[in-house]
Amino acid sequence: MSELRKDLVSGRWVIIATERSKRPDDFRPSGGMARIPEAVGFCPFCEGNEGKTPPEVFALRGAGTAPDSPGWSVRVVPNKFPALNRGTPPPKATQGVFQWMEGTGVHEVVIENTDHALELSDLSIPHIRDVLRVFQQRIKTIEGELHYQYVQLFKNKGKEAGASLSHPHSQIVATPIIPKRVKEEIYGADRLFRSFKECAFCRILREEEAAGKRLIERNRHFAVVAPYASRFPFEMAVYPLRHSPSFTDVAEDELLTLAETMKHILTRLKDTIGDPPYNMVLHQAPNPSLSLKGWPNIDKNYHWHLEIFPILTKVAGFEWGTGFYINPVPPETAAQFLRQT
Amino acid sequence: MSELRKDLVSGRWVIIATERSKRPDDFRPSGGMARIPEAVGFCPFCEGNEGKTPPEVFALRGAGTAPDSPGWSVRVVPNKFPALNRGTPPPKATQGVFQWMEGTGVHEVVIENTDHALELSDLSIPHIRDVLRVFQQRIKTIEGELHYQYVQLFKNKGKEAGASLSHPHSQIVATPIIPKRVKEEIYGADRLFRSFKECAFCRILREEEAAGKRLIERNRHFAVVAPYASRFPFEMAVYPLRHSPSFTDVAEDELLTLAETMKHILTRLKDTIGDPPYNMVLHQAPNPSLSLKGWPNIDKNYHWHLEIFPILTKVAGFEWGTGFYINPVPPETAAQFLRQT
Repeated sequence: MSELRKDLVSGRWVIIATERSKRPDDFRPSGGMARIPEAVGFCPFCEGNEGKTPPEVFALRGAGTAPDSPGWSVRVVPNKFPALNRGTPPPKATQGVFQWMEGTGVHEVVIENTDHALELSDLSIPHIRDVLRVFQQRIKTIEGELHYQYVQLFKNKGKEAGASLSHPHSQIVATPIIPKRVKEEIYGADRLFRSFKECAFCRILREEEAAGKRLIERNRHFAVVAPYASRFPFEMAVYPLRHSPSFTDVAEDELLTLAETMKHILTRLKDTIGDPPYNMVLHQAPNPSLSLKGWPNIDKNYHWHLEIFPILTKVAGFEWGTGFYINPVPPETAAQFLRQT
Repeated sequence: MSELRKDLVSGRWVIIATERSKRPDDFRPSGGMARIPEAVGFCPFCEGNEGKTPPEVFALRGAGTAPDSPGWSVRVVPNKFPALNRGTPPPKATQGVFQWMEGTGVHEVVIENTDHALELSDLSIPHIRDVLRVFQQRIKTIEGELHYQYVQLFKNKGKEAGASLSHPHSQIVATPIIPKRVKEEIYGADRLFRSFKECAFCRILREEEAAGKRLIERNRHFAVVAPYASRFPFEMAVYPLRHSPSFTDVAEDELLTLAETMKHILTRLKDTIGDPPYNMVLHQAPNPSLSLKGWPNIDKNYHWHLEIFPILTKVAGFEWGTGFYINPVPPETAAQFLRQT
């Protein structure tokens, strides 16, 4: 029998389709453990090719090395084909009945390491911590410019997940408008706060720790769960145990634990279903430098988190039509496998 | 310069990314006009193989032919691996803090014709009308059972669009809950009704007819537009000119015009970008047999429509994180090409 489950914060329902139930091996590429690596031609993100990207805006690099030259470990460059271009956002305008704005914003690429073949999960824990620290620094710097209401960090790994270059990288897009999904989560969390009398994410985390069956990892600072209403097989969510609306607020010692947590879960994902393409997205509070009139109390109600989901099923007509999802792997099963490996 | 555009009804913003601008030819499969057809092994939807599907629930078939035997032109069968199973939906329950329901619903497949190689757009206009009529009849019948709040009709064409079988077919899924996207549209349309003093869709249609540049087709009964805030390259929306919340309400003569309209636009899509995979979804009012307490006036405010979008770009981290979309083809360009052919 299938089940319908509701994601409390977003209000989205998912169908856990047991008739279509699948095991991890069903998602492995056929013919063995490893997916065939994509052919690597010329790569503008590899060390030595710094001249082939727009000039770097930030880098962790060895003493005495010049910008846009070898010697870096993490490097940030503007996207060569930006979705949005830097600039002061003009006020919203209209075109007939429609609402319109000039497409101003920021679009940067964080090149996570020099070696094309080393994925985020292959890096050392201190190196992953460095990548996370660079994420924090870039987000803070962009937020300081005050033009942008939200800074979206995300990672596309693998062609099926939307990566056009295979060299490990993440992306940062700042928008002059608060994204629809973030707004939904903020308002959903506010509604739940009124009934729970506490942050909904904190409450859900406590429930998940007590239930245990969807818990993938828990350490001093973070918990990773297979969400109750997972949209996708082997979806994971990383939450800080300490209530906080902003990833940029993660302290130095917490950052090292986060790096360790990410290394664990990404390695487990790889071991469980064979290095799948995946997306990772950060959800946190809008730009704290701006005051949002009429919005709920985000500091109290909202709780930053990372969503990580391998791309194993297709989003199709049903999902587009309804905004609901069909997931053939119950999160309890996913958590069991992601814990075991 | 990129643009940000808002979809009035859903509140979703999209980025029209001119820096990433593409022309129709960029979306054609490389090496010529036609995509390579998928290898056809055994097909349970082909005529003669009726015994390989669950028993039909409806069919248009020649006089004297028996159910589940050859002689049909359109055939409806339950999905062999249903996402939801028929049954009375039990009341919502909880699992700890979470909301849960048994997965009851309907999941049917409409096999559009006997010939594996003939896509919807290849069929004669009267045959397409028959398919549309079968859609109406099945939706009405399922709505009559009263268990389901919404009946979602959709079509996945091609593997990238989520089709697991290549024989031309559509699907019907009835859910005991009104889908998130439909709810958003109903509430969005209600807000707009209060400012426009008329149905927002009727108003937008009038604007699009006056502007002309996003209009793809217009006839006695229907208009097809490239939506102002198109999420995807070559996205199309089909609207009835006569205000109506329900597709099931389309009259017999209108249905023939709709069939003609669909044949035109699907053929144009094929000619423009070379038979792409696509999704089609119907948005209409929830089950009219049920009374929805506390909801807006759906009859007055909501306007049924079909959304059709080829799958040419990937939904990736940015879209998942924000709920916004990046579209490299302005709808004005899309409309120009879809009109020209």
